[in-house]
Amino acid sequence: MSHNSFGHLFRFTTWGESHGPAIGCVVDGTPPGITLKAEAIQHWLDRRKPGQSRFVTQRREPDAVQILSGVFEDQTTGTPISLLIQNEDQRSKDYSKIKEQFRPGHADYTYWAKYGVRDYRGGGRSSARETASRVAAGAVARAVLNHVLPKPVEIQGALVQIGAHKIDRAHWDWAETERNPFWSPDAAMVPRWEEYLDQTRKAGSSVGAVIEVVARNVPVGLGAPLYGKLDADLAAAMMSINAVKGVEIGAGFEAAQLTGEENADEMRMGNEGVKFLSNKAGGILGGLSTGQDVVVRFAVKPTSSINTPRKSVTVGGEDVETSTQGRHDPCVGIRAVPVGEAMMAVVLADHLLRHRGQIGL
Amino acid sequence: MSHNSFGHLFRFTTWGESHGPAIGCVVDGTPPGITLKAEAIQHWLDRRKPGQSRFVTQRREPDAVQILSGVFEDQTTGTPISLLIQNEDQRSKDYSKIKEQFRPGHADYTYWAKYGVRDYRGGGRSSARETASRVAAGAVARAVLNHVLPKPVEIQGALVQIGAHKIDRAHWDWAETERNPFWSPDAAMVPRWEEYLDQTRKAGSSVGAVIEVVARNVPVGLGAPLYGKLDADLAAAMMSINAVKGVEIGAGFEAAQLTGEENADEMRMGNEGVKFLSNKAGGILGGLSTGQDVVVRFAVKPTSSINTPRKSVTVGGEDVETSTQGRHDPCVGIRAVPVGEAMMAVVLADHLLRHRGQIGL
Amino acid sequence: MSHNSFGHLFRFTTWGESHGPAIGCVVDGTPPGITLKAEAIQHWLDRRKPGQSRFVTQRREPDAVQILSGVFEDQTTGTPISLLIQNEDQRSKDYSKIKEQFRPGHADYTYWAKYGVRDYRGGGRSSARETASRVAAGAVARAVLNHVLPKPVEIQGALVQIGAHKIDRAHWDWAETERNPFWSPDAAMVPRWEEYLDQTRKAGSSVGAVIEVVARNVPVGLGAPLYGKLDADLAAAMMSINAVKGVEIGAGFEAAQLTGEENADEMRMGNEGVKFLSNKAGGILGGLSTGQDVVVRFAVKPTSSINTPRKSVTVGGEDVETSTQGRHDPCVGIRAVPVGEAMMAVVLADHLLRHRGQIGL
Amino acid sequence: MSHNSFGHLFRFTTWGESHGPAIGCVVDGTPPGITLKAEAIQHWLDRRKPGQSRFVTQRREPDAVQILSGVFEDQTTGTPISLLIQNEDQRSKDYSKIKEQFRPGHADYTYWAKYGVRDYRGGGRSSARETASRVAAGAVARAVLNHVLPKPVEIQGALVQIGAHKIDRAHWDWAETERNPFWSPDAAMVPRWEEYLDQTRKAGSSVGAVIEVVARNVPVGLGAPLYGKLDADLAAAMMSINAVKGVEIGAGFEAAQLTGEENADEMRMGNEGVKFLSNKAGGILGGLSTGQDVVVRFAVKPTSSINTPRKSVTVGGEDVETSTQGRHDPCVGIRAVPVGEAMMAVVLADHLLRHRGQIGL
Repeated sequence: MSHNSFGHLFRFTTWGESHGPAIGCVVDGTPPGITLKAEAIQHWLDRRKPGQSRFVTQRREPDAVQILSGVFEDQTTGTPISLLIQNEDQRSKDYSKIKEQFRPGHADYTYWAKYGVRDYRGGGRSSARETASRVAAGAVARAVLNHVLPKPVEIQGALVQIGAHKIDRAHWDWAETERNPFWSPDAAMVPRWEEYLDQTRKAGSSVGAVIEVVARNVPVGLGAPLYGKLDADLAAAMMSINAVKGVEIGAGFEAAQLTGEENADEMRMGNEGVKFLSNKAGGILGGLSTGQDVVVRFAVKPTSSINTPRKSVTVGGEDVETSTQGRHDPCVGIRAVPVGEAMMAVVLADHLLRHRGQIGL
Repeated sequence: MSHNSFGHLFRFTTWGESHGPAIGCVVDGTPPGITLKAEAIQHWLDRRKPGQSRFVTQRREPDAVQILSGVFEDQTTGTPISLLIQNEDQRSKDYSKIKEQFRPGHADYTYWAKYGVRDYRGGGRSSARETASRVAAGAVARAVLNHVLPKPVEIQGALVQIGAHKIDRAHWDWAETERNPFWSPDAAMVPRWEEYLDQTRKAGSSVGAVIEVVARNVPVGLGAPLYGKLDADLAAAMMSINAVKGVEIGAGFEAAQLTGEENADEMRMGNEGVKFLSNKAGGILGGLSTGQDVVVRFAVKPTSSINTPRKSVTVGGEDVETSTQGRHDPCVGIRAVPVGEAMMAVVLADHLLRHRGQIGL
Repeated sequence: MSHNSFGHLFRFTTWGESHGPAIGCVVDGTPPGITLKAEAIQHWLDRRKPGQSRFVTQRREPDAVQILSGVFEDQTTGTPISLLIQNEDQRSKDYSKIKEQFRPGHADYTYWAKYGVRDYRGGGRSSARETASRVAAGAVARAVLNHVLPKPVEIQGALVQIGAHKIDRAHWDWAETERNPFWSPDAAMVPRWEEYLDQTRKAGSSVGAVIEVVARNVPVGLGAPLYGKLDADLAAAMMSINAVKGVEIGAGFEAAQLTGEENADEMRMGNEGVKFLSNKAGGILGGLSTGQDVVVRFAVKPTSSINTPRKSVTVGGEDVETSTQGRHDPCVGIRAVPVGEAMMAVVLADHLLRHRGQIGL
Repeated sequence: MSHNSFGHLFRFTTWGESHGPAIGCVVDGTPPGITLKAEAIQHWLDRRKPGQSRFVTQRREPDAVQILSGVFEDQTTGTPISLLIQNEDQRSKDYSKIKEQFRPGHADYTYWAKYGVRDYRGGGRSSARETASRVAAGAVARAVLNHVLPKPVEIQGALVQIGAHKIDRAHWDWAETERNPFWSPDAAMVPRWEEYLDQTRKAGSSVGAVIEVVARNVPVGLGAPLYGKLDADLAAAMMSINAVKGVEIGAGFEAAQLTGEENADEMRMGNEGVKFLSNKAGGILGGLSTGQDVVVRFAVKPTSSINTPRKSVTVGGEDVETSTQGRHDPCVGIRAVPVGEAMMAVVLADHLLRHRGQIGL
């Protein structure tokens, strides 16, 4: 049990607060002999970087990752990989309000109630800034997957819903996700979300979102019943991301409305073995990967830092109306897309290393 | 990492196949000095027992639990508690079909693809029979919660949806859940579900369901950021139950549609400390319990054993039409209610033991 | 962390008290497709069984093991293997003394001080009876080693010292260990130990012993620096056996007296790769197996149940002189030989499963 | 399972190679509200620092530790503490020999055989430099012990043997350990060891050593039977230190020669509860602390880097005579004293956090 680590044979441990000197992670379990350069990790960090559109937080950080160990002459050595990202945008700010007043819907209150001492600056440990470490670990996980597997695993995420506005799945185009600031797979949705988020920001409000992450070329047999199920680990992985309130696999909650006939993915023999005629299971049956695409969806609540005053209490036990000043992130879910991709990579890499002996890889 | 264990300081390990000589679990971490009799565990097992209405599987088992260790003169001693349940209803049956043909939507195929050897009788290890061990472990977890906490934790589950038929939350009555075979909190829904399930069974079909589990009197501060979050563990716990495809906390997927104002649970000072004016968070913020009710919902897919023929393949690699003969469970979700309660108890007991030093208990 | 489990990918969990209804273990992580019959496990249990010579405890138990799960048609299925041994020799006895008075040198006092409630009958959980579960788990571990490795691992233990009487290593003959009740590899030592132990028992006293366990055909590369070292796990494994007070690898404490020249095992190229010219390292360098024999030694203290009165205190806080009545085990170290072998098998099987992906097995 | 982490509720993860940019560790599980400044950690690092006498390696490093997270306004916050030490003394050197030839008795060969790729500079990951991270983590562990316990735990280490030269325990004076470069508790031994080590170094040789570490004021009840025993964890902790080949608790291997009467520590009621009249048990019975001093001893082999040529092989599979050029460490055991102290602190802090709920702390 370690509260700041995730995974078993592929395992990362994150550390760092939003406004401390740096954040980072230690990635353990990477097999030796994998080419790994800082630039390859940087590529994925740049995808996540804030300040890239008007719809996400304006904190500007280069987020330049340094590899401090575990790599020798651009090759992993099998020893732990320490990754460090300096915190540069620690503008001197007035933190008296956030120090004294709990933001409703935020971890302010629970951290204070449990730990007493807390680094309240910018959310401290509960800041979404920690997700940069996840993305860095996810980049290493991708390298592991590509190294061990004969066919590279492809992991892609998309935003499928902002507020009540859901994309039209008939319009789904993965290439489109790289062309708009929302990772929307539906081009037609982009202007509607832009308008909706502009309104939301102007209103000093925020909204939630739903993200879908898909992994292709996952071999059959990752996961282990009954408490090392691939879907149970994916659920924990996604639920551990800040602000996530729900996770589903394949048909998910929709499965409750299906009949057995509709839900059961039929099978036929194909040229390369069993072929499924549908994927309601989201690529997982009995906790084990089926060889189909692994499909995970998760819901992100609206950010709790809003400009509208809300009823709250102070550290000293007084009732108060509180609100967050200045610019804020109207939809924190957008930035969760690369984080969900990273967690998918980490879970798959961990299970690959756990089960490779069993599945002949 | 252990594939058949769950929890850390309170931890259980299950074993057993549907048609082997017995099933059971070892519960480790129970503090000493807690009164524990077999009858107290039996009470919860009887709640889960199949064959109690025409809507659940007709397997008839006394499911009598034996305590083999860890209890001396009706008191726990702090050593591991071994619980054993004999399998009695192992009717000699023709398993040739289930041995040869994969049921679509079932773990048959993935177990076979990964492990080769499998005990296919009655689903073997992937049978819902394993959940009896969870319920037994949950009974011990409840005893731990009640022993350590000054105020007993109350855990209750309810079925809130079968197929497309959702209960009316305005009718919610916890007492009602004990009066009908569905754990429905909405009396008006009972006859509708009865009719719907009778039709479903007659049609040789099955349907999914949604279960809600609520825990009251949970102290503030259970859980630990960032990878030991209470919600992440609850998500893993529920997703590890057979046939579960989605998990949500509090507002869950609905949170995606809320604004920041709607989602943020406002606070006021009350006589016994902070009071929340709503519970969209489902009792968890930043991975830590808030002191409000912990609310979890999960979706169960329709059982894959249906009488309608579906396209499938055989172990030998031939295309086939397959169906399950005989009586079957039209809605396996009904039996998941006590299992969800048990997993809630286990997660809370584990976190209580992990964090009691920090929260003064 | 689980207090009653050992290992990671190969992992067993033991349960049971000396005078409860049964003892047993759950073995998790066994690959599927390994032939495993109860008789094969029984073979190793019979080696350990008490009552086989006048030098060990006279408790007579058939110690018949039952396989309750994880094996189907004599083949492992990859699911947890539950092993159960009934306790039959639970003679009704007067436990009032052991209940009230702490035996000096025994766990009586610490269990009582920590747990309050304890099953004092026959030592309860702290009884050496628990080691039967270890031997059963070790039997499964041997099957795993033999299944995964191209060349069977051979594990053998020997008693090398009783009291101050050490065997002469120049006389070492492994075959001899199977021919005498002490597992002595030195035939000449057998009559001397017999005489010494007869005296010891007549005097109502007891003595300690040193056990050596050797594993042959261990592949290069088991273990992982820096906190998953093979030797660190072996040290924990052996130190977890009842009454063990010291563990050493290869030259062990003797290494403190060696010069660098003496200690460094020189190497030469042989027909099958690197050959070492000596084995001071005991087959482990940097926490990784070298391919040489893995050699572990451990010291067992004299049993604390002796007939001679010693100063002690009672549960009620009174000074007292206490002694154990009746027959006792003059040298509990004898029975530790098969237990040490079993723990060696378990550690190697666990590391084999953890590292097989890396070392091409 | 994590190969580069140690502990459970108090847990540290180390990373870094001897000649990489930095080394460090992440310490997880520290309770909030403990005063912790870099200077307090630096104090213990300075104790371990090489280059302080002519008897230890001349690598000169300031070893200045930085706290990168987990501490806010000089108080721990309960979040992970990231500690970083820059590597400054990375003199450009010719590594061609160490790259090509395996030093007998060193991890060179096993790392190469398992991982292929390795950072051979200065021993890379297998360098004793990693122990600086252990000492840093140990400093945090000491702060935890002092914070949680009513009476500060005192942990002290001493060197009790170099080569065949053992201290006279009748001369034991803890104050003396701070006055000589060997941590010798026996002043009379200091000149003899000086002379012996000077000879050893001149001869291009090296010798082993034995270290003893004692912890006072340890509460009763730390540890948990049967696989979370305090002594089993201490054995793993000490055996994980570079070059350690043996570990013993209390009487250790000497216990094999004792009779039951000699070994059993008698008890009497004292003013503050049970008093033991001797401490053969080394403060641990049945895996649980007794309240007496916890006493651990471990043997360190001679360093394998010696100036005398030894038979070895090359990476390319050629026989070779190899030796280490330049200055070397004649007795690496000296520097192991503060490392052993640190590991004792870590194990006790971990067990304190695991068991505090049970023992009322």
